[in-house]
Amino acid sequence: MPELRLNLVTRDWVIIATERAQHPADFKREEEKAPAPHYLESCPFCPGNESKTSEEYYRLKDDVGWKVRVVANRHPAVVRQGERLRIMDGAKRAVSGVGIHEVIIETPVHNTTPALFDAARLESIIKVYKERFTEAYRDQRVEHVIIFKNNGEAAGTSIVHPHTQLIAIPVIPVQYRDRIRSAMHYFDETGSCIVCDCLSMERKDGRRIISETEHFISFIPYAALSPFHTWIFPRRHSASFSGISEAETKDFTVHLKTILSKLYWGLEDPDYNFVIKSSRPRDIGNEYSHWYLSVVPRVSKAAGFELGTGMYINTCVPEESAAFLRSIKPE
Amino acid sequence: MPELRLNLVTRDWVIIATERAQHPADFKREEEKAPAPHYLESCPFCPGNESKTSEEYYRLKDDVGWKVRVVANRHPAVVRQGERLRIMDGAKRAVSGVGIHEVIIETPVHNTTPALFDAARLESIIKVYKERFTEAYRDQRVEHVIIFKNNGEAAGTSIVHPHTQLIAIPVIPVQYRDRIRSAMHYFDETGSCIVCDCLSMERKDGRRIISETEHFISFIPYAALSPFHTWIFPRRHSASFSGISEAETKDFTVHLKTILSKLYWGLEDPDYNFVIKSSRPRDIGNEYSHWYLSVVPRVSKAAGFELGTGMYINTCVPEESAAFLRSIKPE
Repeated sequence: MPELRLNLVTRDWVIIATERAQHPADFKREEEKAPAPHYLESCPFCPGNESKTSEEYYRLKDDVGWKVRVVANRHPAVVRQGERLRIMDGAKRAVSGVGIHEVIIETPVHNTTPALFDAARLESIIKVYKERFTEAYRDQRVEHVIIFKNNGEAAGTSIVHPHTQLIAIPVIPVQYRDRIRSAMHYFDETGSCIVCDCLSMERKDGRRIISETEHFISFIPYAALSPFHTWIFPRRHSASFSGISEAETKDFTVHLKTILSKLYWGLEDPDYNFVIKSSRPRDIGNEYSHWYLSVVPRVSKAAGFELGTGMYINTCVPEESAAFLRSIKPE
Repeated sequence: MPELRLNLVTRDWVIIATERAQHPADFKREEEKAPAPHYLESCPFCPGNESKTSEEYYRLKDDVGWKVRVVANRHPAVVRQGERLRIMDGAKRAVSGVGIHEVIIETPVHNTTPALFDAARLESIIKVYKERFTEAYRDQRVEHVIIFKNNGEAAGTSIVHPHTQLIAIPVIPVQYRDRIRSAMHYFDETGSCIVCDCLSMERKDGRRIISETEHFISFIPYAALSPFHTWIFPRRHSASFSGISEAETKDFTVHLKTILSKLYWGLEDPDYNFVIKSSRPRDIGNEYSHWYLSVVPRVSKAAGFELGTGMYINTCVPEESAAFLRSIKPE
């Protein structure tokens, strides 16, 4: 029988649709990806084309050139210049679209993917994330910062060259506010962080865990919203990504590499998104919020039901998704 | 400059991304759809294949056969048999997946689409929606019913034969609860229905309205979440679709036909979802909830930003989307 599971962290209800469930291996990419060259003359992210990108904010150099660059997005969702103004007119509520929209170019190589990066590169990238995340919050107009990756067409990008985006917006996303409210409610009732309690539960149960080390734990949530939806959580309670330590960064890198390469080898390089969900640096000490990274492979489509309810239908049982990913040995 | 707009009905923040905005006509379908036959032997929804569908719940007959059929979904998200049981174990919260999952087969013709239906057929279908919606709520295990259409691959279906789905679930979707809470909050403050107030504002402004008749109004919301996202609202305050009158049904049909055919001719038959958002029949009298139909053409992709924030980036200015749809004269 199908089961409806409530994700206590996100408050999403998910239907685990056993009657239409598929085997994890059924989600492998079917059509081969078009091959891409090592270097592409028309790609603004390739070395030699630096002048095609907008303003550069950061560059990590190596002996021959650069390892990582951070540049302004050429078609930004929000713009750097301008004041944060609020419009309130009748039932209209608007805020001027000021903020930050950056692109983190992860490598000079056009046709690679984070699953294939070496640990040192991935660690450098995480450090750049932390630096840009913290920096973005210094802007007084910024209320919320999101770091996310769109990898592949189904994940919303047509740019092959590996890159991450950072968007800093002048409002609080309603989703964030709703989740914080529910986490506070849980804290009211129990005196605990809902995420810390979920981690205890996941460790005790064990069936959905993919990897566990000193500082992090990777698992498929009990109410995963789609097949192979994976969470990487710091074991130490901390509300903000800005507080990740040197040792934790190393360990986080190992987890991200593990998950992305298991997806790469197990599902034939699926398209995916990942996002870092975090409170602001100034809220780092709060007891009810806990930062994490969420990976969502784009192996299924949301449709009218999801749109109409905000719920999800997951056609792969989370325990089976986890067992499958555990079994994959990246080459 | 971009603008962040707050949708007061859904509480979604949307970035109207003027810096990357596209002209409405840029969203036309580029690749031609594969042609489909009038009748397909392997299609379970085609006449003559009635035995391939699961249990039939309803049939609207005509002189030569049937006009509309309602059958059980063969791979249901929730199942009819069983008790609604709740699991509470540590931080786990689950409910057995009981409920109703039906398919409304809208026509015997395989290769047509609602934009091309005549008014009489569309009206029959709306009446069937109402009948099945009301019937589903007679099941004591059901908390919420959603009627939705996935039209085309990008909208989550690979079945060409025109059909709608109804899913009745044993829980209250968190999205519904959050919106009702915020509508109640608005009612507390103002003594009005937030939707009724939005309708007044839209009529006064006029720029986003596509069509207005005695009983309904169709418009692109001020904070539309994606290009051509359209709402059809009853002008009479009513919390539940179950209360639609005979005259309103006729008028609603005209609006749905208008919107779907403008999309069909203006954007070259785009994939789309539509959903009916409604409170339960028993809540019909409440003052703060207002049913409506939402159409979302699948002409853009949600990506990491949307996933990480619950917000949207709309690359087509709502006022321009509306002007474009107003200008389209269906053939």
